[in-house]
Amino acid sequence: MLATEKPAYKTRTHTIRHRLYRALETSYGKRRGVNLYFNLILVTVISLNALAIVLHTVPAYNLKYEKLFYDFELFSVTFFTIEYLLRIWVCVENEKYQHPVKGRLRYIFSTSAIIDFLAIFPFFFTLFAADLAIIRILRLFRIFRLFRISRYSHAFRMIQHAVADRKEELVLSVVLIVFMLIIVSSLMYYVEHNVQPKLFSSIPATMWWGVTAMTTVGYGDIYPITPLGKLLGGLVAIMGVGLFALPTGILVSGFLDHVRTTKTASQKRFCPHCGKEL
Amino acid sequence: MLATEKPAYKTRTHTIRHRLYRALETSYGKRRGVNLYFNLILVTVISLNALAIVLHTVPAYNLKYEKLFYDFELFSVTFFTIEYLLRIWVCVENEKYQHPVKGRLRYIFSTSAIIDFLAIFPFFFTLFAADLAIIRILRLFRIFRLFRISRYSHAFRMIQHAVADRKEELVLSVVLIVFMLIIVSSLMYYVEHNVQPKLFSSIPATMWWGVTAMTTVGYGDIYPITPLGKLLGGLVAIMGVGLFALPTGILVSGFLDHVRTTKTASQKRFCPHCGKEL
Amino acid sequence: MLATEKPAYKTRTHTIRHRLYRALETSYGKRRGVNLYFNLILVTVISLNALAIVLHTVPAYNLKYEKLFYDFELFSVTFFTIEYLLRIWVCVENEKYQHPVKGRLRYIFSTSAIIDFLAIFPFFFTLFAADLAIIRILRLFRIFRLFRISRYSHAFRMIQHAVADRKEELVLSVVLIVFMLIIVSSLMYYVEHNVQPKLFSSIPATMWWGVTAMTTVGYGDIYPITPLGKLLGGLVAIMGVGLFALPTGILVSGFLDHVRTTKTASQKRFCPHCGKEL
Amino acid sequence: MLATEKPAYKTRTHTIRHRLYRALETSYGKRRGVNLYFNLILVTVISLNALAIVLHTVPAYNLKYEKLFYDFELFSVTFFTIEYLLRIWVCVENEKYQHPVKGRLRYIFSTSAIIDFLAIFPFFFTLFAADLAIIRILRLFRIFRLFRISRYSHAFRMIQHAVADRKEELVLSVVLIVFMLIIVSSLMYYVEHNVQPKLFSSIPATMWWGVTAMTTVGYGDIYPITPLGKLLGGLVAIMGVGLFALPTGILVSGFLDHVRTTKTASQKRFCPHCGKEL
Repeated sequence: MLATEKPAYKTRTHTIRHRLYRALETSYGKRRGVNLYFNLILVTVISLNALAIVLHTVPAYNLKYEKLFYDFELFSVTFFTIEYLLRIWVCVENEKYQHPVKGRLRYIFSTSAIIDFLAIFPFFFTLFAADLAIIRILRLFRIFRLFRISRYSHAFRMIQHAVADRKEELVLSVVLIVFMLIIVSSLMYYVEHNVQPKLFSSIPATMWWGVTAMTTVGYGDIYPITPLGKLLGGLVAIMGVGLFALPTGILVSGFLDHVRTTKTASQKRFCPHCGKEL
Repeated sequence: MLATEKPAYKTRTHTIRHRLYRALETSYGKRRGVNLYFNLILVTVISLNALAIVLHTVPAYNLKYEKLFYDFELFSVTFFTIEYLLRIWVCVENEKYQHPVKGRLRYIFSTSAIIDFLAIFPFFFTLFAADLAIIRILRLFRIFRLFRISRYSHAFRMIQHAVADRKEELVLSVVLIVFMLIIVSSLMYYVEHNVQPKLFSSIPATMWWGVTAMTTVGYGDIYPITPLGKLLGGLVAIMGVGLFALPTGILVSGFLDHVRTTKTASQKRFCPHCGKEL
Repeated sequence: MLATEKPAYKTRTHTIRHRLYRALETSYGKRRGVNLYFNLILVTVISLNALAIVLHTVPAYNLKYEKLFYDFELFSVTFFTIEYLLRIWVCVENEKYQHPVKGRLRYIFSTSAIIDFLAIFPFFFTLFAADLAIIRILRLFRIFRLFRISRYSHAFRMIQHAVADRKEELVLSVVLIVFMLIIVSSLMYYVEHNVQPKLFSSIPATMWWGVTAMTTVGYGDIYPITPLGKLLGGLVAIMGVGLFALPTGILVSGFLDHVRTTKTASQKRFCPHCGKEL
Repeated sequence: MLATEKPAYKTRTHTIRHRLYRALETSYGKRRGVNLYFNLILVTVISLNALAIVLHTVPAYNLKYEKLFYDFELFSVTFFTIEYLLRIWVCVENEKYQHPVKGRLRYIFSTSAIIDFLAIFPFFFTLFAADLAIIRILRLFRIFRLFRISRYSHAFRMIQHAVADRKEELVLSVVLIVFMLIIVSSLMYYVEHNVQPKLFSSIPATMWWGVTAMTTVGYGDIYPITPLGKLLGGLVAIMGVGLFALPTGILVSGFLDHVRTTKTASQKRFCPHCGKEL
């Protein structure tokens, strides 16, 4: 029947596209069959890419294996390009991107698709050019998406939720850190500038001292030498201890909230008297 | 009627002053209308001031944009002075400062008004003089007052309450840190003074080592070289780990208390049997 | 009557000694009257002593105020000696040290009395001798006893209890740190010794690197330069992050336990049905 | 009777072997009698071994006490070899290794037996050879097994359980750290390579900077000098603060879970109305 022909065509397309969609998808849950194998290959290619990006900068390896690096880059880009195009084709299987044109456009401008795109486009402009090579590092970010399919997916989600729950507090503590940084660096500039005019040349230059002092890194390339500067430096270092306490405290309360919530759901208690939930 | 004339006058004054008061106030809660716009302008001016204070110390920018810096300073001080005078005028609208004279005097000596005053007065003595420029940094502190109107007001209050709840424990841990600092620096002075008389010249000088060692900053400008000094230095560094644990532990218990209290209030449980609160 | 004369005498002695005991005691609780004033004087003398010990090592002050330092030392030792003798006299008022001889002997060998003794005895051997001056630092430890009379007594006890509750876990984590220190220093010695024989001269010498690396102090006087050494150094640094997490986690659980226990006592809940405790 | 003869023989063997097994075993619980003394001797020998391994590398001691070191090494290896062989003989007393051949083979390839073997085998190849001496450090790992018999066994188990409960989250945070390390080191390489080509020679070389910056060690042998590099370095240092917060938060929630679980078991509450567990 003609009436069913089109649905049949649609169903066939649907079947191939749907299978492919299910093979490519990286949502939470246990992997099986084609999806498992495809994702294992993807993790391997991304990991080898990370290794290639890192080792490519070692002069000894670069000279010796230049051909290999080039071939692997060619293979990677081909692989990622095909994967990218396939994802755009099958994305309409996802409820969020159902419309053939609008849905696909929205998918193309989603964060994960942009990362996928940035991972391949520099290749088409220039090969192994140092000035664009930096963008290839973005490929590394792809691996974060794959955590969710690993056996660590539960742990990853727990950390993700704890951080998301306390996002505002964490952002605020970073803002507070930046503010304290400006204030202590300004003070230190006026204290040390006259004695060490080259190192503490301006407030922005002093902020390099500020950030290494507050985070207790302390490289030793810049530090106060006047008694007042040392007093201020000591106060900043002690303040830095509190700086570590703040995000830790926030994150701990986030973790505990999540743990408690998870438990409450599975450990509901019922009144032994009337049977109603307590 | 003459009897209503004065109230009418009062009401008029009240209306203008009250409107202005509501436009300027920065207490917690959602902003709307004039108040929102005024506070946005205030945040912008203060932020640009911070930027100007920081960039003004960079010789390259200072030479190039000297006129701009001067004009912006003039504008800022005018803006802050008008704002300061208006705040003194309208402060009587606040229940705490109702009396026209006594209330205003009390307002002038409140912490926030003093910070506002310190932000403007250096200008009237000397312009861009390095010795008073340091006081202009106080303007940066003004920004903390504005956190409460942002979308982070909830997070800010949570951190504020957690810190306030554990204020005594936090002060005490700072006191303990200072005490341990005096003790370990005294010991280190007697251990290292003979070998490194220039660096470990006195106990106060050794305290610079002490604070960088306990807070694990470790600039590398001063460190023990004798075996006994290294042993003591190692113990101090390990003690420093505990030093981070103390305020973190205190702050975490503060955060959790606050979270728990907030929850208990909204999640009161009632006995399903008799309806009374459990 | 002769029969009452002795009791009267005893009572009189008791009265003076008991009053003095109550004036000197530093157990927990609110201070009032003589006890408050005496303890304030004691805190002042101990604090000034700490200041004198610290400033005495600064050559400029030592030359200028030598007489003042000497006089203050003379006054301090006299003050502490009288206080020490009085404490021995009145200690029998305390239930723990009731026996005139055995009780007093036991008091003399109590930790706090030994600290009191060590604070004064060096003076009687030599005055301001550098080799014994170190013992004068012990006077600083006296101040810890005085925390309990301050307004921070509650906070001090809370920290004290949290630490005491988790003493075994904290001791164990220090032991684990020392073990890991021995292991990583031994490994690093075999890795770096051939390349940097002067710095990594032996395992004990390498432990100085180990402790500054694990505690993230990193002075920069000793660090690995071979690729394998840097790999090991990096692992040790990341391990050091966990090192901070362990005592912090232990202390936090200690704080929370204490908070929870305190609360449970005051927030007992009763069944609204039968009135019994829930 | 012949029928009982074999059992009698078996029982006798069993008795000796069983006694020896009970003397050697190091499972949790209070030690008594032979087992206590044997384990004390074992702890002493292992501790002295650790000391010998450490001090043997100090040239001064090595020359002076060469004979002593050699004799103690000979004694240690003999002691450990006998202990190792005895453990293989008696292991069949353990339910897990009952079979005389298969059980023993499985025991030999258990983690603890492999550590025991590695502690002795280097001796039989070469004495005090530097290239194998490194394996002797493995003897130190033996001491971890002995924590469980000490008075800290409860604390050790608590830490062990808290870490085991959160193993996946802790592994994941190490993986996240390594990922961030690769990303920030790659970025820093492209930023600083042109200005400091010797220090930031390749991405692997830059990772040494990355790990000392993220963990706030900061030796000061390598650090950015360009403004962009300093900006990135500052962000990495602040990110490092979060790095400490993550495992701490995970471990704290692990500790609290364990504490809560332990408590719930012993603090079950019962409904005063009907007697059933609440």
